[in-house]
Amino acid sequence: MKEFTINRPDQQIRRQLQEKIDNLSKPKGSLGRLEEIALQIGLIQQSLIPALSRPVNVIFASNHGIADEGVSKSPKEVTRQVVYNFLNGGAGVNFLARQHGFELLIVDSGVDCDFPPSNILIDRKIRKGTRNFLHEPAMTLGELEQALSYGAEVIQNCYRKGFTVISFGEMGIGNTAASSMWMTLLTEIPLADCVGAGSGLDKAGVTHKYNVLKTALDKYTPLYPSSSIEIMRYFGGYEMVMAVGGMLQAAELGMIILVDGFIMTNCILAATSLYPEMIHYCIFGHCGDESGHRHLLNFLKVKPVLDLGLRLGEGSGAICAYPIIDSAVRMINEMHSFDQAAVTKYF
Amino acid sequence: MKEFTINRPDQQIRRQLQEKIDNLSKPKGSLGRLEEIALQIGLIQQSLIPALSRPVNVIFASNHGIADEGVSKSPKEVTRQVVYNFLNGGAGVNFLARQHGFELLIVDSGVDCDFPPSNILIDRKIRKGTRNFLHEPAMTLGELEQALSYGAEVIQNCYRKGFTVISFGEMGIGNTAASSMWMTLLTEIPLADCVGAGSGLDKAGVTHKYNVLKTALDKYTPLYPSSSIEIMRYFGGYEMVMAVGGMLQAAELGMIILVDGFIMTNCILAATSLYPEMIHYCIFGHCGDESGHRHLLNFLKVKPVLDLGLRLGEGSGAICAYPIIDSAVRMINEMHSFDQAAVTKYF
Repeated sequence: MKEFTINRPDQQIRRQLQEKIDNLSKPKGSLGRLEEIALQIGLIQQSLIPALSRPVNVIFASNHGIADEGVSKSPKEVTRQVVYNFLNGGAGVNFLARQHGFELLIVDSGVDCDFPPSNILIDRKIRKGTRNFLHEPAMTLGELEQALSYGAEVIQNCYRKGFTVISFGEMGIGNTAASSMWMTLLTEIPLADCVGAGSGLDKAGVTHKYNVLKTALDKYTPLYPSSSIEIMRYFGGYEMVMAVGGMLQAAELGMIILVDGFIMTNCILAATSLYPEMIHYCIFGHCGDESGHRHLLNFLKVKPVLDLGLRLGEGSGAICAYPIIDSAVRMINEMHSFDQAAVTKYF
Repeated sequence: MKEFTINRPDQQIRRQLQEKIDNLSKPKGSLGRLEEIALQIGLIQQSLIPALSRPVNVIFASNHGIADEGVSKSPKEVTRQVVYNFLNGGAGVNFLARQHGFELLIVDSGVDCDFPPSNILIDRKIRKGTRNFLHEPAMTLGELEQALSYGAEVIQNCYRKGFTVISFGEMGIGNTAASSMWMTLLTEIPLADCVGAGSGLDKAGVTHKYNVLKTALDKYTPLYPSSSIEIMRYFGGYEMVMAVGGMLQAAELGMIILVDGFIMTNCILAATSLYPEMIHYCIFGHCGDESGHRHLLNFLKVKPVLDLGLRLGEGSGAICAYPIIDSAVRMINEMHSFDQAAVTKYF
């Protein structure tokens, strides 16, 4: 199993960072979250003049065996179709990436399709979709280890290319179902609070999804260990495990991790269950519209930047938050201090 | 008194706009607020391909007589100092305007200072500060009419220069106090819920501010009419009344109005009390940290785009929301439809 060395950023620079922020020509605290984010990024980068160089959005995509149980509004071929939409520039994430200068990278973690070569698609297909966890573990331990390593390797390459900000996105019909299983087992929040409408189930659809997942949960609980690795393996998507590997690698490298919606927050949950200190490298982009997401953010004791009722995935909510992150860094670098501005310090 | 013609945008195009949005290749509604904003802008511009051309942030600045009563943490010379900070590019609004491509315009509505000429400063000074409303009306009716006209004229000029998006900001020590008076009198929300810490008062400071305002309110209520114009005149700042004139002009011209924090939302309140339909042209940038702001947004039945604990003013919270507005417009113009994307329509 791949191991990482992830420490909390050294706190020694915190006092100086806070002083610099408090001396900018504004009422103390009046830039709210921008001030908190500037502090966090200063700590991650161990710098009083933090910088965002290039941002990249990596989307991990895969099919899920559990989709055969009708747990999603969307048919499973939508996974493949939407990957093509990414490649053709027409999806939600594309216009957002163009708007905010993100490079876009799609990782085929396990899509049931043979894609033609593309310079933004990386083939790390483990299998053409996971197994159906209603009947058997979604993946083998070997596949999980492979996925963690692939995810880490993708992010190492991003780091070598000069990216310092990485947002994680996903595509995979059935992956809110898989995420609900991770969430209930890793947090002990009741399953009912972890299950939502996904891409648009109606009430009867959510009930069916819950019943399928409850059956899977009841079969799993008495027989299997409650270790994170085992839970990830049994229910996970390849794209989810690969994202976990990528997130851990990004934290080890001191990159800024932008977290998207429900599924990616579950990947952070899994990652922190293995390496708790990785949370210090994460900025949570938004609170999504999937009902379990707010519970999960509360469980992690984190505040999302945005709350716009998004539930698209693909990294969309993380990218939407990027200008706020950028503002925070500009604030600490560009605003004049009280002295420079000749403004009476009013606090 | 300057009059405006402000109608609700023609609703005929609404159905077509909604169909276009629902046919973009994403689960229906999954882009949340972006979809709502795209619809609103499509209605304002009466177009299925709305466009944001140039955005401008106009800051109205003025001194307030009520500042003599110690209702602000900041000494009143800070008004002048911060205007210089704007001109020198070192304030909070400056880095945000640079980041998001806003042109910046400062209108001296009534600052107690003679500024040297600057190409981003417009002199529309009515008087070097309002009168102290604890003892007398802040301005004369003639001054109010002048301020409304000046505000409208500034925005007409912006329109002629090709700006279609306008965010309104302010600077004026004492103007949260003035805003609290407008708010309690125009909404009938109790004064206590309308008074907050401004630029950073402690608990005792807020109590003192409340007591001053309560005295002013008790003197005003039995003697004066409850007409919006009279309330605006008695308690308003020149910058606030000028902003109201500008907002009404912007609505008449079909511009997109980005609303900043507590003070600017009170200007919208005053503007809607005169012309209720102007609200359809407004996008509320954020919920600020000033305690009355959330009450006021609820009173107006509007949802702010951001909630970042900002309380700087200057238009900062409105500009921070701009990339979200931009995303909404890019969404409706750049995303492929289900047909174009060859994605199975999954709702």
